[in-house]
Amino acid sequence: MTHQSTWTVTGMTCGHCVASVTEELEGLPGVEHVDVTLDDGRVELTSSAPLDRADVAAAVEEAGYELSP
Amino acid sequence: MTHQSTWTVTGMTCGHCVASVTEELEGLPGVEHVDVTLDDGRVELTSSAPLDRADVAAAVEEAGYELSP
Repeated sequence: MTHQSTWTVTGMTCGHCVASVTEELEGLPGVEHVDVTLDDGRVELTSSAPLDRADVAAAVEEAGYELSP
Repeated sequence: MTHQSTWTVTGMTCGHCVASVTEELEGLPGVEHVDVTLDDGRVELTSSAPLDRADVAAAVEEAGYELSP
């Protein structure tokens, strides 16, 4: 079963930032697709299982950005 | 003999942008050192010969940014 979730990431300013966040999130277990919109920081994830917020936050922080509450 | 030159690049928004510009400028023949300041777009180049503005502009554009007049 496929799970969809939407998150907001702050601090991204350019396409390189988007690429970094996308790369980190694609590395999370179960993540199948990552769609990041630079303008509003919206991140849509498709995964094979529900994602843990702490894992998503850790990946975003690893890329150098913050997950919005 | 070492030559110093200072340029201004517009459009850089984050450290990734700085890295891209630095990488392209380091690829120019004769360039020995590149120092980019994100805040004001200031780029200081150290080279073994005087640099041609057109070459610097081309490298900056290759990275996706603009050399200020």
